[in-house]
Amino acid sequence: MKRDDCIFCKLANGDIPTRSVYEDDEFNVIMDASPASKGHVLILPKEHYADIHEIPDETAGKVMILAKKMAERLTKNLNADGINIVQNNGEAAGQTVFHFHCHLIPRYTGGSSIVTWKPQELPTEEMDAIQKQILG
Amino acid sequence: MKRDDCIFCKLANGDIPTRSVYEDDEFNVIMDASPASKGHVLILPKEHYADIHEIPDETAGKVMILAKKMAERLTKNLNADGINIVQNNGEAAGQTVFHFHCHLIPRYTGGSSIVTWKPQELPTEEMDAIQKQILG
Repeated sequence: MKRDDCIFCKLANGDIPTRSVYEDDEFNVIMDASPASKGHVLILPKEHYADIHEIPDETAGKVMILAKKMAERLTKNLNADGINIVQNNGEAAGQTVFHFHCHLIPRYTGGSSIVTWKPQELPTEEMDAIQKQILG
Repeated sequence: MKRDDCIFCKLANGDIPTRSVYEDDEFNVIMDASPASKGHVLILPKEHYADIHEIPDETAGKVMILAKKMAERLTKNLNADGINIVQNNGEAAGQTVFHFHCHLIPRYTGGSSIVTWKPQELPTEEMDAIQKQILG
């Protein structure tokens, strides 16, 4: 179901103009209007799902297959040297539009990193405890 | 095919000890030894594929379905507020181990961002030109 109040529903379904680089029955791939790099695109399902938790398994699977297809195209047609595939869920993870979307960000040798973190070294006991917690 | 010189082949197949939180015939999900946050895990296929370009479509699809399953588990069992799904391809994109892997990074309200970029505003003509180039 499309939502009247969702900008990405409108973009995915062509209800407002956008720069599409791929479209099929279920998805639209559009250029990010504020790109992180040359050729930064978003995979948008036409149906409204807020995030990874809401998207059906079958659709989730198709997202990664489409990401692969688009990664190949961006690499070939833009001479990209690398691709970051980034999919954020929840405000705490930097999601700002609550319609599932997957970023494909071409990277070029010499560019700055967009995915960085400070690796932690945790004590063995803490790693053990977290593992148990994940296993549930 | 496993590769003798690939650390992630060894980890995915249990040839060296690791902290696994999920395993099936095709995948192992292990805790990142230098986590970006509490519960940072890696989805590893047991077969060796260097990156998104090498992974078969069917396996790519299963990665995102497994990412969804693990995102649910991390959210529930660790009380995570968000999840970053990050998959890097190529040295230019920050890939350091050349065995396909997908990061699942739980995020907690108040934590710092790990995915950041400076959005660019490009002139219309440049956006048009990039769109044409992607379309090929």
